[in-house]
Amino acid sequence: HGKWFETKKEILSWVSIFIIGFCTALVAFGIDTVIRYLTAWKLTTVTKSMGACKHDSCIATSLLLLAAFNLSFVFIAALLVVYGEPLAAGSGIPEIKCYLNGVKVQNVTRLKTLFCKAVGVLFSVSGGLLVGKEGPMIHSGGVIGAGIPQFESLTIKGLKLNIPYFRSDRDKRDFVSAGAAAGVAAAFGAPIGGVLFSLEEGCSFWNQALTWKTLFCTMTSTFTLNFFLSGTFDHSWGSFNQNGLLTFGVFQCPPSNKNCHLWTLGDLLIFIIIGAGGGLFGMVFNAINTKLTLFRLKYLAKKHKLFRVLEVLAVAFMTTLVVFLSPLVGKCKPIRGVSAFPNNTITLSFKESGQNASLQRFLCPVGEYNDMATLFYNGQEIAIKQLFHNNGEFSLETLGLFFILFFFLSCWTYGSSVPSGLFVPCILCGAAYGRFVASFLHNYLDINHIYLGTFSLIGAAAFLGGVVRMTISLTVILIECTNEISLSLPIMVTLMVAKWAGDMANHGLYDIHIFLKSVPLLEWEVPIIAKSLTAVDIMNTRLKFIFPHTRVRSIVNLLRTTAHNSFPVVTMETVDREPKSTLSTANLRYRSSSHVTRMQVERERARTRSQLETELVEVDLSDEDTSEEGSMCEKMRYEGLEEINSNEDSNGSSGLADNLQPMTFHGIILRTQLTTLLKNNIYHNQYSGASTQEVLSYEKFNEDYPRFMNIHDMNMDDLNLNEILDVTPYMHPCPHIVHPDSPVPQVFNLFRTMGLRHLPVINSRGEVLGWITRHNLTHEFIEEIVKIKSNSRD
Amino acid sequence: HGKWFETKKEILSWVSIFIIGFCTALVAFGIDTVIRYLTAWKLTTVTKSMGACKHDSCIATSLLLLAAFNLSFVFIAALLVVYGEPLAAGSGIPEIKCYLNGVKVQNVTRLKTLFCKAVGVLFSVSGGLLVGKEGPMIHSGGVIGAGIPQFESLTIKGLKLNIPYFRSDRDKRDFVSAGAAAGVAAAFGAPIGGVLFSLEEGCSFWNQALTWKTLFCTMTSTFTLNFFLSGTFDHSWGSFNQNGLLTFGVFQCPPSNKNCHLWTLGDLLIFIIIGAGGGLFGMVFNAINTKLTLFRLKYLAKKHKLFRVLEVLAVAFMTTLVVFLSPLVGKCKPIRGVSAFPNNTITLSFKESGQNASLQRFLCPVGEYNDMATLFYNGQEIAIKQLFHNNGEFSLETLGLFFILFFFLSCWTYGSSVPSGLFVPCILCGAAYGRFVASFLHNYLDINHIYLGTFSLIGAAAFLGGVVRMTISLTVILIECTNEISLSLPIMVTLMVAKWAGDMANHGLYDIHIFLKSVPLLEWEVPIIAKSLTAVDIMNTRLKFIFPHTRVRSIVNLLRTTAHNSFPVVTMETVDREPKSTLSTANLRYRSSSHVTRMQVERERARTRSQLETELVEVDLSDEDTSEEGSMCEKMRYEGLEEINSNEDSNGSSGLADNLQPMTFHGIILRTQLTTLLKNNIYHNQYSGASTQEVLSYEKFNEDYPRFMNIHDMNMDDLNLNEILDVTPYMHPCPHIVHPDSPVPQVFNLFRTMGLRHLPVINSRGEVLGWITRHNLTHEFIEEIVKIKSNSRD
Repeated sequence: HGKWFETKKEILSWVSIFIIGFCTALVAFGIDTVIRYLTAWKLTTVTKSMGACKHDSCIATSLLLLAAFNLSFVFIAALLVVYGEPLAAGSGIPEIKCYLNGVKVQNVTRLKTLFCKAVGVLFSVSGGLLVGKEGPMIHSGGVIGAGIPQFESLTIKGLKLNIPYFRSDRDKRDFVSAGAAAGVAAAFGAPIGGVLFSLEEGCSFWNQALTWKTLFCTMTSTFTLNFFLSGTFDHSWGSFNQNGLLTFGVFQCPPSNKNCHLWTLGDLLIFIIIGAGGGLFGMVFNAINTKLTLFRLKYLAKKHKLFRVLEVLAVAFMTTLVVFLSPLVGKCKPIRGVSAFPNNTITLSFKESGQNASLQRFLCPVGEYNDMATLFYNGQEIAIKQLFHNNGEFSLETLGLFFILFFFLSCWTYGSSVPSGLFVPCILCGAAYGRFVASFLHNYLDINHIYLGTFSLIGAAAFLGGVVRMTISLTVILIECTNEISLSLPIMVTLMVAKWAGDMANHGLYDIHIFLKSVPLLEWEVPIIAKSLTAVDIMNTRLKFIFPHTRVRSIVNLLRTTAHNSFPVVTMETVDREPKSTLSTANLRYRSSSHVTRMQVERERARTRSQLETELVEVDLSDEDTSEEGSMCEKMRYEGLEEINSNEDSNGSSGLADNLQPMTFHGIILRTQLTTLLKNNIYHNQYSGASTQEVLSYEKFNEDYPRFMNIHDMNMDDLNLNEILDVTPYMHPCPHIVHPDSPVPQVFNLFRTMGLRHLPVINSRGEVLGWITRHNLTHEFIEEIVKIKSNSRD
Repeated sequence: HGKWFETKKEILSWVSIFIIGFCTALVAFGIDTVIRYLTAWKLTTVTKSMGACKHDSCIATSLLLLAAFNLSFVFIAALLVVYGEPLAAGSGIPEIKCYLNGVKVQNVTRLKTLFCKAVGVLFSVSGGLLVGKEGPMIHSGGVIGAGIPQFESLTIKGLKLNIPYFRSDRDKRDFVSAGAAAGVAAAFGAPIGGVLFSLEEGCSFWNQALTWKTLFCTMTSTFTLNFFLSGTFDHSWGSFNQNGLLTFGVFQCPPSNKNCHLWTLGDLLIFIIIGAGGGLFGMVFNAINTKLTLFRLKYLAKKHKLFRVLEVLAVAFMTTLVVFLSPLVGKCKPIRGVSAFPNNTITLSFKESGQNASLQRFLCPVGEYNDMATLFYNGQEIAIKQLFHNNGEFSLETLGLFFILFFFLSCWTYGSSVPSGLFVPCILCGAAYGRFVASFLHNYLDINHIYLGTFSLIGAAAFLGGVVRMTISLTVILIECTNEISLSLPIMVTLMVAKWAGDMANHGLYDIHIFLKSVPLLEWEVPIIAKSLTAVDIMNTRLKFIFPHTRVRSIVNLLRTTAHNSFPVVTMETVDREPKSTLSTANLRYRSSSHVTRMQVERERARTRSQLETELVEVDLSDEDTSEEGSMCEKMRYEGLEEINSNEDSNGSSGLADNLQPMTFHGIILRTQLTTLLKNNIYHNQYSGASTQEVLSYEKFNEDYPRFMNIHDMNMDDLNLNEILDVTPYMHPCPHIVHPDSPVPQVFNLFRTMGLRHLPVINSRGEVLGWITRHNLTHEFIEEIVKIKSNSRD
């Protein structure tokens, strides 16, 4: 690999980054355009039927027409999810978050998932469900990021360019993070927010080159989308007027009013209270949704798939009913010359254009509009802008009722089997809440200097923050959506307060869903209680290891009976290595007392062993799909391992017995490396020596990436089980290691920051004592260990 | 340390962060206000003298008056720097960059430095030098960040609150990074840019909690400054209209002109060319400034301090002359009804207000203005806004001449002994360049759709990017200054191209100045050639170590004869630890061949030793102040160490001889720990055993932070040199370590990412082979090693 290789790789990565940004924007543009046309088709048809109707009874006809549209659209979305790819349900942010955290979720970056997600979300949004298209956009970006740099498709054969430069999990993760960032950038017109999203959720360390590329990717994505939107809907190809799918319009005082301020210092106090309120609402939202999700997991998941489709249809019908009927209790307000949107309005060419185009008349007299209908009959993005900018034209009752209806409907919707973003519903719901507070202060407490739009925005931030509990990236995304730097302090303070208020009772909704799926996610920091623990307390001591030269049969057995992804390569010595006691000085005595050995560790553990094991089985419920390392329960299932391998010869060339002899550590070998070596018949005859073993090139090693062969699919007849495999040329001889006495926070930082997947615990004699994986570092595991330790001490 | 301690620390850190943001903004506000009044005083006096003048000869009087003002102001600034604190010269960004990179630069965070910098910059700016106040603001923020969380002052005795929570280098670094970010935020009204600045320059890993706090700090800073500026100069206390010290005004097409676009796709190509041009100009700027700085180091630094003051006065006089006289060749243009600044104009109450207040008449007839005077006679911030927004009113000749004059004057100024920011001069210079290109295209090539302001902005970005070569943070800072998200793509693309163009020949100006000061800065990545090296190639094998129990005399000798900041604690064994050959199996043979021992390493090195040593002395020229680890040359100076310690007894309790016996590694002890232990008389009698040694508490240990006692200041009479110190309770027993075979990129990542200062190289038998510090990982050192290796191979 020379300098030219590096240069070529660098250029290719820039090209890939550009294509990722471009394609993500194209997908976003496609989804947005189709949604607009489908929605317009639906609404014009229904409106026409309502216009043709003169007496009350035929309103029912219109309702049925609308329900028919909505149910059939939503049915398609549900089918795609339930029968296509179940992972396409929900917003996709939890899945991307897990992936960037280092957990391999099966299928999450497949082309099929992208298809189901992208097509599904356009039908679920067009079907009138209270869901956003933004979350799925982020997931789509992630899939595109994973796929493009491979320059080949495993689903569509024949699509293969033979550019095998980025065939490693680390490279792939970088591109997925760039893709997800591009998704954020396209959805919210927030290139910097996108970068910060991928930093906050993913990267373990600040890599300047990667961040710079990610920023390029988000810029490409934002402006590609902007270009196509401006061209298509503004008819000005080449200019850039449409920032992102979701924009908040321009917050600006009318130039004529010199006393108008977007906010003043005194308002900050009200914003803090709104923030706290939003945090509490978010907390309740999350609590209800958690119950619902548990209910779904408990009952719905076990039933026939059709029940999930039926649930979605029930949600859709209910939503249709509420949306259609609630304007009956709305208030009629006169249409005034207020400009609803100072600019940035997107109007469809076949819809009546003009400043008040999005005000809905419903059953009001000419020259007036129904305020509830204006919120419910428009697209959610338009309703958000109405709340942010249409001054003083919503009654308190309407806002209150809208908030309550929307709150429960969107809470019910999120988690059902359709692609469903959470951002837009939360923003709309929160905007109604903020607007309600502002109108209340204005009307009843005579606080007149209030700029209503700012309060709506703050309400939106508060509720959204209360639900998702993101910090930095959410702040920046909202600031960029707002495109007004002077509102950044209120947004940040509100989000901070909302997070603190909400965190008192539960976690963010994405984290809750991740937790319910039992994914071993690594937090940002270890719990404070972990400071009293050392590596030896949390490590896994039940080692499955291999010798530098191992018989093929043993390897096959090992791979078939464990789920571990990495194995230590060790040698065992029967030589007595203790220094002779006659020679021991003060320092040597010191030295031998400072040693931790496997024997000591096991003796220590023996006391609490039974307790430990039973508890751990409860702790670790992660299903096989999401665990990248063999999970604890997995290991325990194969406790009978020793028997299986009892036919092993013990001439030192192979062995799997787990005893307490000192094991000298030589390196790490991965499961995929072992299967690849076996598949390529890389082993040598036991009499002819290791030098006769063939050499497998690096390219050959990564040929199968990312779908390496499963050991259970391998044909045993092709293998010569009595041959011997020398793993030493392929193992990693000097991985990061920790000392058994290292404090857990130090271990955690090393693991999290360097993005590791396994961390051997090696004592100062070079003997391996244990193995630390992601599972050993989750909050749940550490808390359990602390509990057991304190119990055993009592 | 219980949970309550952690909570208290957390609360205190938020409070500190708030105070840091607040104080940074206050300092910025103070500097800005004083500059305004001083400048106004100067200008009104001079203008009055010009107004009173009716014939040509008295113009000379005005010139002399102006020169008197400027020279006396600049004289004060120069005195503060030359006789006060030399570190206060320049922008301060290189110093902050070094500090955040982990290099301890003496005095960089002292109160005295803050004073000289802050007062110095207001006089250098008021004195009419072509310097900005933004860079010094960042340095000021850093000092404030370092100082506030200590809650006590070492300079001003009596100021002591006894809150010793943040007494470690790591905590301090976090606060300095927050303070620097607050400085950026205050200077440019760029809270997000500030955070990214501190991430890009400093933090080794993305720490979510810290980033969130930093964002809060930057927000506080931005809005505190905004509050005071709005209150003082807009007379609207409580509102927030003045974003940062440097703002670019509003980029907006007039609402009447529907065909106006800030930029279109086709312009992007021109922007790329402007970017490349800016990069080349920046390259030339840096090259000239490098020559100048080398000249200063070679001649001026050795002369009497007064010469440095004289140089500054020469610069000031030259600048005054150019500024005063150049308008004579300016063009007179009619004042039209164009609004120079759509808003955001700050006018002093006693200055004529109104839209065209900043247009300077000079010697033009009434109703006209002199375009050169408008650029030179206003504050630089106002001139920038003129170039960005005053449409079409500067002649090509004026712009060209202005660019050339400004280019050379500011290049001369930067690096002389006054506090001097680089951002504003670069932006102004670049804006003239961009404006020139735009006017040229407009006038001569009939490209009419051009929005001049955008081109000026792009020119500014290109030139600034070409000089400083920052990427992410600079992009975001400019975007936030512009406050227009749709200009973000052009800005980013321009900066990217400018950086690429400039990087072909030299580095960014900050990096050049850091390099010229011989600071061992760690880059973001290792050079590609390092991939062929392993830890054993770069480590320092001349170990200075101590034993777990060491005689006080030996420790004093060790500390006095080395400059190392950390020492391995080792034991030596004479026991033969090789496994008996009769028992060796295939695996044991494998194992012993995989060992690296000190003997092998030394044997290997012996061949290239002489060459290596002579070359390394050349490589490592860093002066003592900036080196946090003992530098290579330092160590070589004390090659006679063994003799000094030859009177040591060899009963195993102490020893410093450097031989090739295996040394078992037990831990790391720091220089400061050793001096603190000695200072507190923590040692025991050699007959009474280690258990009789007193225990030093953690609080006591950090009492002296950050100014620990120097071993040379210690009174030897207080020490009992024959007693023995047991370091084992105080050493770090399990630091991060690396295997001798670890590839250098892996070592570098561990070192850089975890923010280490020393990294022991330990073989798999637990023996220490070498020591890696910052010096061993600089590009220069690694490139040297590669050269030596390839030479010895030939």
